[in-house]
Amino acid sequence: MAGRRPRVVLDAMGGDHGPAETVPGALAAYREHGVRVVLVGRDGEIRRWLRRYGAAEGVEVRHADEVVPMAERGGNTASRQGSSLMVGCELARREGLPFVSAGSSGAVVACAVRAFGRREGVRRPALAVALPTTSGSTVLVDAGGTADPTAEMLAQFATLGAAYARDVLGVRDPAVGLLSIGSEPGKGNRLVVDAARLLPDLPVRFHGNVEGHDVLAGTVDVVVTDGFTGNIVLKNIEGCVRAVRALAVRAGTSDPGVLEEVARLYAAETHGGAALLGLAGTVVVAHGASDAAAIARACAVARDLAAGEAPTAVNGHRPAGSTT
Amino acid sequence: MAGRRPRVVLDAMGGDHGPAETVPGALAAYREHGVRVVLVGRDGEIRRWLRRYGAAEGVEVRHADEVVPMAERGGNTASRQGSSLMVGCELARREGLPFVSAGSSGAVVACAVRAFGRREGVRRPALAVALPTTSGSTVLVDAGGTADPTAEMLAQFATLGAAYARDVLGVRDPAVGLLSIGSEPGKGNRLVVDAARLLPDLPVRFHGNVEGHDVLAGTVDVVVTDGFTGNIVLKNIEGCVRAVRALAVRAGTSDPGVLEEVARLYAAETHGGAALLGLAGTVVVAHGASDAAAIARACAVARDLAAGEAPTAVNGHRPAGSTT
Repeated sequence: MAGRRPRVVLDAMGGDHGPAETVPGALAAYREHGVRVVLVGRDGEIRRWLRRYGAAEGVEVRHADEVVPMAERGGNTASRQGSSLMVGCELARREGLPFVSAGSSGAVVACAVRAFGRREGVRRPALAVALPTTSGSTVLVDAGGTADPTAEMLAQFATLGAAYARDVLGVRDPAVGLLSIGSEPGKGNRLVVDAARLLPDLPVRFHGNVEGHDVLAGTVDVVVTDGFTGNIVLKNIEGCVRAVRALAVRAGTSDPGVLEEVARLYAAETHGGAALLGLAGTVVVAHGASDAAAIARACAVARDLAAGEAPTAVNGHRPAGSTT
Repeated sequence: MAGRRPRVVLDAMGGDHGPAETVPGALAAYREHGVRVVLVGRDGEIRRWLRRYGAAEGVEVRHADEVVPMAERGGNTASRQGSSLMVGCELARREGLPFVSAGSSGAVVACAVRAFGRREGVRRPALAVALPTTSGSTVLVDAGGTADPTAEMLAQFATLGAAYARDVLGVRDPAVGLLSIGSEPGKGNRLVVDAARLLPDLPVRFHGNVEGHDVLAGTVDVVVTDGFTGNIVLKNIEGCVRAVRALAVRAGTSDPGVLEEVARLYAAETHGGAALLGLAGTVVVAHGASDAAAIARACAVARDLAAGEAPTAVNGHRPAGSTT
């Protein structure tokens, strides 16, 4: 593969399918997006898949013995020292490259934090996904990084999400909404009620609470929520789009192609992955069920993020957390 | 209005629009669903709206001076003694009638618990909504009753939701899933991880964790979650269906009528309201934004629930909570 193309480090063992999808995904990333992928994982297994695709030569492979099971959550990273996830993160950090994994998002977040470290003042990184709306995109943050954040972390997610909308999506003064169960202030669970008190003091344009129906309505540019709710909302949207298509087909729609097109907008292959914000490096977490096309797209997103965002995504703004 | 038709008590002041929608809603409930509605609220205001609809005579109105603002949450009910919500609940309890309100769901839950009382062993009532799927319906519980439940409460919601699916929807042995961020056991926030340990010991068929995309996929008959997440999922579905329709129209679909039909399945007017499970009485919480058609439908749902469910929805099963 050519020498001047941008390089991305990929956890070849991550995801529900491992090398069966990551290897053809890496090849597609080069072919379709011009990204050179460094595959990290079990050398023999990766090379077997590469040979199957007739690409045994010219692809960079770094061996790592261990595999982090998809069922693993966050927490302890010591046991992951020799894993493709940890070895990949460390390689990416050393060489200043973006990193991609379709592994368990909790485990990816834990290893990435350990390898790259957080940006100054950031308590927890957050996953951000840009969702298409009728008027553009809405950034959903946190889409699954931290299942039980504190109110202070939620407030930081607002700052990180606003910086992402500004620097990556080009929204000049992004409006930030706090996802809750009523637009009136004071409505929500304890976490949201506490966070709503912190947000007005941050250097972001705080719109107030938004509700579930606002996520795709373009009400705000950034929807802030905890990683548990965010992940459920993200996957609920995927399922809902599929249900609408199926119900319309059953009701005898004469135009299933358009619904296919709309469904593709919300499929994991299209959004490619979630950006892990708040780290001193670029990390993209692909969907666990990613196929080769989704992996390829995630590698391209990582390349774009590294080019557009790093190293100054939150520079020029008050550092996250400085007001709390 | 005829004497033998079933009666339902309606909080005429509840909802974003108050009597402007509840009064025509009550008239439509009679006209379209054969339900006689007792309107509770400010007598003068209600009668003014009745006159506007040419129905000043023959409609039962009970006066209540106070109105609970939509912004109010749960908690203290003492301050609501003279409100349409509290007076309506107490009237319904005394006369053994179903009660409907489109007021703030937290306030409705608090007043309904106070007036009707919980069934034996039930710690907190839960809101249940039956969502259409391609294969039938899925009960989402809790859809907004309790924003911060304990794990024990979540486990009870499973029992209440299963009873609802069995007794109201006619599902013989409902499969119950716990909404989380990974299907593997042990994935989720602290609340869900704790609840997942309790569910296998309950007299319900526990399927395990389900994810956001399972809600409309028919994976299980009952999806159990906390009231914060459940309310967001419910409204997210409404918004997502609207977004798909709008995106398909923009992409030039030749068949917007079918999408209109599908959207109607998920609109508040169709599902009519959420049943408040676990009380010694029938209570339906209509969407705050309900129009007259939605109010009428909610009254019909309350009538059906009272006929089909009360007084034995959880009878014949081990009482909720007896295993904890």
